[in-house]
Amino acid sequence: MHLSEITHPNQLHGLSIRQLEDIAKQIREKHLETIAATGGHLGPGLGVVELTVGLYQTLDLDHDKVIWDVGHQAYPHKMLTGRYHDFHTLRQKNGVAGYLKRSENKFDHFGAGHASTSISAGLGMALARDSKGEAFKVVSIIGDGALTGGMALEAINHAGHLPDTNIMVVLNDNDMSISPNVGAISRYLNKVRLSDPIQFITDNLEEQFKHFPFFGDGKNLSPEMKNLKEAMKRVAMPKVGAVIEELGFTYFGPIDGHNLSELIDTFQKAHKTKGPVFVHVATVKGKGYAQAEKDQVGYHAQNPFNLTTGKPIPSNTPKPPSYSKVFAHTLTTLAENNPKIIAITAAMGTGTGLVKLQQKLPNQYIDVGIAEQHAVTLAAGMACEGMRPVATIYSTFLQRAFDQIIHDVCIQKLPVFFCLDRAGIVGADGPTHQGVYDIAYLRCIPNIVVMAPKDEAELQRMVVTGINHTTSAIAMRYPRGSGIGVALAEEGWEPLEIGKGEILRQGDDLLLLGYGTMVNIAMQTAEILSEHGVEATVINARFVKPLDTELILPLAEKIGKVITLEEGCVMGGFGSAVAEALLEKNIKAQLKRVGVPDIFVDHAKPNESYIDLGLTPPQITEEILGSWFAKTPSISVAK
Amino acid sequence: MHLSEITHPNQLHGLSIRQLEDIAKQIREKHLETIAATGGHLGPGLGVVELTVGLYQTLDLDHDKVIWDVGHQAYPHKMLTGRYHDFHTLRQKNGVAGYLKRSENKFDHFGAGHASTSISAGLGMALARDSKGEAFKVVSIIGDGALTGGMALEAINHAGHLPDTNIMVVLNDNDMSISPNVGAISRYLNKVRLSDPIQFITDNLEEQFKHFPFFGDGKNLSPEMKNLKEAMKRVAMPKVGAVIEELGFTYFGPIDGHNLSELIDTFQKAHKTKGPVFVHVATVKGKGYAQAEKDQVGYHAQNPFNLTTGKPIPSNTPKPPSYSKVFAHTLTTLAENNPKIIAITAAMGTGTGLVKLQQKLPNQYIDVGIAEQHAVTLAAGMACEGMRPVATIYSTFLQRAFDQIIHDVCIQKLPVFFCLDRAGIVGADGPTHQGVYDIAYLRCIPNIVVMAPKDEAELQRMVVTGINHTTSAIAMRYPRGSGIGVALAEEGWEPLEIGKGEILRQGDDLLLLGYGTMVNIAMQTAEILSEHGVEATVINARFVKPLDTELILPLAEKIGKVITLEEGCVMGGFGSAVAEALLEKNIKAQLKRVGVPDIFVDHAKPNESYIDLGLTPPQITEEILGSWFAKTPSISVAK
Repeated sequence: MHLSEITHPNQLHGLSIRQLEDIAKQIREKHLETIAATGGHLGPGLGVVELTVGLYQTLDLDHDKVIWDVGHQAYPHKMLTGRYHDFHTLRQKNGVAGYLKRSENKFDHFGAGHASTSISAGLGMALARDSKGEAFKVVSIIGDGALTGGMALEAINHAGHLPDTNIMVVLNDNDMSISPNVGAISRYLNKVRLSDPIQFITDNLEEQFKHFPFFGDGKNLSPEMKNLKEAMKRVAMPKVGAVIEELGFTYFGPIDGHNLSELIDTFQKAHKTKGPVFVHVATVKGKGYAQAEKDQVGYHAQNPFNLTTGKPIPSNTPKPPSYSKVFAHTLTTLAENNPKIIAITAAMGTGTGLVKLQQKLPNQYIDVGIAEQHAVTLAAGMACEGMRPVATIYSTFLQRAFDQIIHDVCIQKLPVFFCLDRAGIVGADGPTHQGVYDIAYLRCIPNIVVMAPKDEAELQRMVVTGINHTTSAIAMRYPRGSGIGVALAEEGWEPLEIGKGEILRQGDDLLLLGYGTMVNIAMQTAEILSEHGVEATVINARFVKPLDTELILPLAEKIGKVITLEEGCVMGGFGSAVAEALLEKNIKAQLKRVGVPDIFVDHAKPNESYIDLGLTPPQITEEILGSWFAKTPSISVAK
Repeated sequence: MHLSEITHPNQLHGLSIRQLEDIAKQIREKHLETIAATGGHLGPGLGVVELTVGLYQTLDLDHDKVIWDVGHQAYPHKMLTGRYHDFHTLRQKNGVAGYLKRSENKFDHFGAGHASTSISAGLGMALARDSKGEAFKVVSIIGDGALTGGMALEAINHAGHLPDTNIMVVLNDNDMSISPNVGAISRYLNKVRLSDPIQFITDNLEEQFKHFPFFGDGKNLSPEMKNLKEAMKRVAMPKVGAVIEELGFTYFGPIDGHNLSELIDTFQKAHKTKGPVFVHVATVKGKGYAQAEKDQVGYHAQNPFNLTTGKPIPSNTPKPPSYSKVFAHTLTTLAENNPKIIAITAAMGTGTGLVKLQQKLPNQYIDVGIAEQHAVTLAAGMACEGMRPVATIYSTFLQRAFDQIIHDVCIQKLPVFFCLDRAGIVGADGPTHQGVYDIAYLRCIPNIVVMAPKDEAELQRMVVTGINHTTSAIAMRYPRGSGIGVALAEEGWEPLEIGKGEILRQGDDLLLLGYGTMVNIAMQTAEILSEHGVEATVINARFVKPLDTELILPLAEKIGKVITLEEGCVMGGFGSAVAEALLEKNIKAQLKRVGVPDIFVDHAKPNESYIDLGLTPPQITEEILGSWFAKTPSISVAK
């Protein structure tokens, strides 16, 4: 059977192992070929090809539910659920999403993007099933990296307490998430993973014993035998999965995640087991592509690359260094001279660029794993002891630590420096990863300074500003991707005065207030406006909290027409702060807030999203000229 | 020695067991006497008297750090750290706080209030210590209930991975948090707790063996012996603490938490152990007060009560039923006729009133333990299956699930009904528990309706509204404490139209926009204003998202003077939403936003806080008359 003929996963039913292996081979080829062309997550999907195929042969996906964690490993799932023919559109606008989406496909039973959610969602479905008296299977698949996340452990704690609730947790254990895993759980799993697979003698014994009158009643063991079973479990040495079993799950594994017979046998056995079941599958990230198996971090996600050499296809337009790179370089330089600076990441050492700091200053680098809550309170503890913790977390992931920012950092006025990478529109990663809420969710908290640089050179100054600021928490957001190409100093960056913006351009007709990345857009807009006879003053706000009302309000009053520009949600964001300030001082001015409207932004190229959201200079110009200056020129939007 | 002479915990050094027992007795007496008079947390503190005294004898608190989780059990700590003489002011305005506060006392090494933070904070301090080359001890104390929280597990995972970082985690295991604990971890701990305390033969052996040439070099065991040790650990049967040891901690226990000799011996031994150490202490919540030992849930926290009978001192002013009670009653009535309604709580069954629902409809009630993240995604999973999950979580605790609300509920437009109890000013619990950020942190998220009832009768209608609303998520906030005493219907509550407010009073001089509890304040303010010749229109906004701009904006334009009133942060809150709307439509109106300013609100009686924050009708009236109507009457503030 050719993979392209599969439009429903149940078509895998009845296929022989050999046929399934052939399907697996085709998935791998299509996967490699597509990612090489479009870019995307490479290693995770390659690691679960057999897991997916094997599992789906044992399920009826018209009824059973499969919840993939994170979703970046669900490309084989996508190919088996009717998206083979569209797969070449992966991560492109209006194309197949890079993560899971309920609205994309009925077999995406639960959306994903962030880690550690699948067991909670699966357990919710399982409890709903039992409440409704239905009988489908629920399978939650989670990686060993995601198991570091507290909410996965909360879910395991809950599921393990429900002996009558059937749910299968499949651990996709590749001993590697995005970066090498940290943590005791990972080490424990690795120990288990390296031991020989064994069967549970006790479970087999139970089956046999319970049919003898003295030992059981045919269904259950006698209490004495139960005790014996318990005792026997304890002497199994090494007892594989003991921790999991102590937490109330029946443990199967570890099994070879690339052996289809073993996978199918184990899944079938596990489906017959009552209560919460844990299937431990050992997989190889990047399996089947030698380069990816060898460099599992490097091939986690890729830009388009040459399939033969494995090398990225060089971009023909050289780009300025990314904000992340400038950030990491600047912080490293400062940290070399200040041993109190400690960079903290939650499993994003590569993405944040902090691996560079780790290489130079391993003692000033902490990777806590996928554990943002812990990361922030750990930072608070360090701040108590006079350190300068720099919690570097993507905007979207810092949402996980919202309570810790309030409760452990800001109430105590502790000087933690939050660096929010990937703030704003993130592009191909889509709605789960957009970093658009941070301005709103941070500025409502007391005792925190909230800032954003207009370019990568100002980012360097803000890094110094953040390190120097010790009277409260302070947060800096910066975007994914390249800087705008301004000159960078190698050292000697001057800190900024807290709460002070700057005027970049003068004009009497309009006041453009830019925040972060939108300052540059404001400047471009002002230039186009000027061509149409409208002269704008442009302010780089720098700080949304405290807002530079001394600078902004008199100009707003004088000019009378104000536009705020931000790469964040307009509800409660920077523009909202300006609205509050204007009305608080009863400044008579008109205000337009340009930013991300009250919708979730789908995956697309960042430039495509900017156009869809009306965030490009020509669009902003058109809007301003039309509504405030009664001009309706046609201005072409650069695509 | 009399307890009143202790002003520094190091004064416990050198006291005999008998003397310490006497101190413990005095702490218990003072504790009981104080809580009986002031109200507060009773059971938790009584359970850790010996634990505190014993631990502090083994520490030098001028250098060593102790981090108590939650903090409601730290009353003995407070009495030993210079607060004995002020202890009668517990939980009163300007008095001793009910939780821990760095700003209150130098021995409160880390503030607390929410659960599950102590290990993260302690590990941060321990890592800072090692980075600075210092040598103090760090002890994090956590309850078995708080161990359900994901961030505690994230911290254990991290700490267990750092064999060279000395940190002691003390588990205060009373098999009970606020409610009986749920979850597999609790069940496991209970199994361990009920087993006989044993010493680690392997650790003793190690001490002896490593001095023999063949077995070790005097400091470390030979690799062969290490393997043997590992093997022996596995045959210890029942192996107490095996899970903890697998996670990288050296385990001590379980020990009797009311036996001072045993406690001190174990702590001293544990202090000498390198790396992460876990001391498992079995305590009895409410120890020493028969009534509290017997009813551990009832005596977790108390209003003032008669020490002899244990009965609460009846209030001489009968009060209307609390919002929580009305909520739980209403939801129970609806759930009786709708098996799809599932009430979800995160360990707050008593506080939310949902135990009533549990009693009637046990199959429609889920307590997930202290695990708000899991609670929300579990609800999302249930919503996928057509259930009507009602996630009932205090406003302050829902901060923990901010990311899950965005990522698992709202992106997928799942109909989860969030009921935010304790929204607004919470009184004696203080800054960690104020529920003042929810309006801001919810209204920035797409695909969610955000509402608040003006009184307990409208709450009933909103419960129906929430249950009926299935096209997106919906959230309702309501305050701690009594309703305002309006008549309640027993059934037949009518749902409200989404996004529609109501006019409660007409007047041409001023527009008062109230949200939730502040609607009643707005009405009272309007009455006082009327006495001064100013006639106000009062609107009950009901919804902050979607805001009823059709109703509000024309009136705002006509009247020209607008006041928003909310029991939430003014930064980004309801008033901010109104500011956005006014400016978006270019309505020429003045706006004042009344609410919680940009500070953390300390503990006090709610009425005292309202006065401090300027939220009472006379204060609001005075402000309005003075600034907008050039009148400065003296209006007395009701205390």
